[in-house]
Amino acid sequence: MFKKVLIANRGEIACRVIRACRELGIKTIAIHSEVDRESMHVKFADQSICVGDASVSESYLNIPSIIAAAEISGADAIHPGYGFLAENTYFAEVCEACRLNFIGPSKESIEQMGNKITAIKLMKKSGIPVIPGSDGPVNVDDPKIFDTAQKIGYPVIIKATAGGGGKGMRIVTSKENLKNSIVMAQTEAKAAFGNPEIYMEKYIEEPHHIEFQILGDKYGKTAYLPERDCSIQRRHQKLIEESPSPLISDTLRKKMGRVARNAAEAVKYVTVGTVEFLVDKKGYFYFIEMNTRIQVEHPVTELVTGIDLVKEQIKLAAGEKLLIVPEKINILGHAIECRINAEDPDRDFIPSPGTIGKLFLPGGPGIRLDTHVYSGYTIPPFYDSLIAKIIALGESRDEAIARMSRALREVEIEGIKNTSALHSKIMANEKFRKGSVSTNFLPKYILGR
Amino acid sequence: MFKKVLIANRGEIACRVIRACRELGIKTIAIHSEVDRESMHVKFADQSICVGDASVSESYLNIPSIIAAAEISGADAIHPGYGFLAENTYFAEVCEACRLNFIGPSKESIEQMGNKITAIKLMKKSGIPVIPGSDGPVNVDDPKIFDTAQKIGYPVIIKATAGGGGKGMRIVTSKENLKNSIVMAQTEAKAAFGNPEIYMEKYIEEPHHIEFQILGDKYGKTAYLPERDCSIQRRHQKLIEESPSPLISDTLRKKMGRVARNAAEAVKYVTVGTVEFLVDKKGYFYFIEMNTRIQVEHPVTELVTGIDLVKEQIKLAAGEKLLIVPEKINILGHAIECRINAEDPDRDFIPSPGTIGKLFLPGGPGIRLDTHVYSGYTIPPFYDSLIAKIIALGESRDEAIARMSRALREVEIEGIKNTSALHSKIMANEKFRKGSVSTNFLPKYILGR
Repeated sequence: MFKKVLIANRGEIACRVIRACRELGIKTIAIHSEVDRESMHVKFADQSICVGDASVSESYLNIPSIIAAAEISGADAIHPGYGFLAENTYFAEVCEACRLNFIGPSKESIEQMGNKITAIKLMKKSGIPVIPGSDGPVNVDDPKIFDTAQKIGYPVIIKATAGGGGKGMRIVTSKENLKNSIVMAQTEAKAAFGNPEIYMEKYIEEPHHIEFQILGDKYGKTAYLPERDCSIQRRHQKLIEESPSPLISDTLRKKMGRVARNAAEAVKYVTVGTVEFLVDKKGYFYFIEMNTRIQVEHPVTELVTGIDLVKEQIKLAAGEKLLIVPEKINILGHAIECRINAEDPDRDFIPSPGTIGKLFLPGGPGIRLDTHVYSGYTIPPFYDSLIAKIIALGESRDEAIARMSRALREVEIEGIKNTSALHSKIMANEKFRKGSVSTNFLPKYILGR
Repeated sequence: MFKKVLIANRGEIACRVIRACRELGIKTIAIHSEVDRESMHVKFADQSICVGDASVSESYLNIPSIIAAAEISGADAIHPGYGFLAENTYFAEVCEACRLNFIGPSKESIEQMGNKITAIKLMKKSGIPVIPGSDGPVNVDDPKIFDTAQKIGYPVIIKATAGGGGKGMRIVTSKENLKNSIVMAQTEAKAAFGNPEIYMEKYIEEPHHIEFQILGDKYGKTAYLPERDCSIQRRHQKLIEESPSPLISDTLRKKMGRVARNAAEAVKYVTVGTVEFLVDKKGYFYFIEMNTRIQVEHPVTELVTGIDLVKEQIKLAAGEKLLIVPEKINILGHAIECRINAEDPDRDFIPSPGTIGKLFLPGGPGIRLDTHVYSGYTIPPFYDSLIAKIIALGESRDEAIARMSRALREVEIEGIKNTSALHSKIMANEKFRKGSVSTNFLPKYILGR
């Protein structure tokens, strides 16, 4: 087992990793920027080293400084957390060159899954369902477009190759509108991006975002855990996650779990990672991407399985054998996580840094709290706005929602704006309570857009 | 179900009850003393009423004021928490007379179990093992004393009827010392209490304090849950509790659980209660008392069973049927609770009231926190010194201890003294780690007395 781990991160995830190390009897080294001297992760660690100025490029992305800190302090491994350098192939490579164990998958796995196009091609080759599409650009003058659309199955979506933000996008429900929609999308794409190139993909209506936590050891053994439903999103940023998903049956769980495991095996995955899918109402599912790191929402899985994922991650990176058998996992209840961000939901989620005055964060039955803030702490404006994760476990989904609702009501954070009231609104929403949420839920039913 | 519950308590247990009510959709009314205006339970509740001055007799024990508060606010039930009026037969009677549902057992159950002598007689009659004794005073001139001691089985303990604090006590290991010890005990008892009367009881060597949570509905159904081991005590005050007990096998658990259920059935017990035993090294167990209320240490049972005991208590008091089947309970891991008191362990646990400055209380994986304090809160000198309960859940006892150790290390409470460092010392103790703790552990191995 490792003796000393340097945590190349900050905030709640740095605290989370330090906790896991401490419980395993491993010494910890925190790195921090100039403005993070009073941060909780610095207080938690056995040792701390300032690696640079406030800006991330000078500190938490400063590879030479971080490697030097690891070498000076005698660390034998580096945990990257999430974000920052967690999915940086070059960093994994440098760690290897410097004989520092990178607590994550191999650089090859990161690379293969990091490039979306390579990843999807590899998945397709491995027999994993991906969103059907035109396999390259389509042209309005090509008579084969009707066959392509037919093969994909309506509704299809036309997207600009150079696109983003909804520009140059058209949903087509039948062949009568196909040609016309392509022309319009091309015109719009040309105007917006100077490039009229478009492609075609199956349009998944009101999908659930479903992901599977997977684990792999260095000896080729892999396992999957019960799914997380992360459909409550704001511009592809997850706000609420839960496990199990109200959409997924036992049969579908097994089927998707095995596919997720196949995906992991296709890249010889070691440690913990997540395979993400879109699932439509009929239960058809499509691979979208794989995250080769621990995720923000990992606690919901920990609560419903009793497994400590960060400890598993460290142990697998250190060469221990994977002992988890998916078929033997009992789902212990229902868990929901709400991300409390220092943001103003009434002003389009603009970050709200500042000093926290009075503070009360919830606890009690069924509540887990992961936070790095305290009364008197100043949230710097330079980093992620996540300040706390409240995770509720209940015997049923209804109980988990009831617990989360009462926990959110207890939140008192003086001095900054935060998202807890928005979460309360979601918990009270009838559609959410029924579990019929999709990735369109937040803009459509809560933000009213 | 009740619509509005008045909580006749303060501190963490008042917060705990409010949380349960809120999750059940029940409105809550807090009562408070003059000095408790800024208390968390007051902030948590839907409504609050000041019932009197700081002193407990004027406030939390002030039955007329509390009943008036319930009537004014339109409460249909009263939850007494623990301590204060929780085991007061007269209060239960007044509630009944005022048509307020008392969330607890019947006044008859409270009465039967409240008087230790009646309770033990009743238990004996119901076939429940109690500590064998002389059934009344013994006299040195009575030749039958040797038979009595033989029947009880050596070692026996001689205790003064009027005694307390170890005075007039003698442990006798064989008949050779019996007569002499009785004479000495009588002499000591006479000198200390003016009354030489003594009695004889079996001496339980290094016992574990083991208790069973029991539940009963209004229709005669009862159930027991896995035991709690509360052997870490300081002068009969529990400091650490865990579940399951490292001492108890599956077979003994079932056997003792059924006896605990019989005890509950003997007093037609309704809602939640606890049957306490002493268990010796050989696995012989003896009823000592029953607590007819929710206990401080109930969270360890909640963590290992997934059952919310306060919600169960409220539902059972409201007439719902008990659905728990002991044989179907899975033990979900191992839980340990540490009571953090505002006391100075270095000065014989003298209370340490005052204002809390900087504050950080632990969270993260496997940690539940029940507290009512916050940064800036002033702990009044008038009430119990309990300020927080840290409860750790792990897959194994080792993991629970590792989690508790790291959680205790995170504790930062500025401005007052607290017991967290003492708990850290206990968690690090080899004897504790091996699970070989008895009620003598704390004075013998930690406090060194």
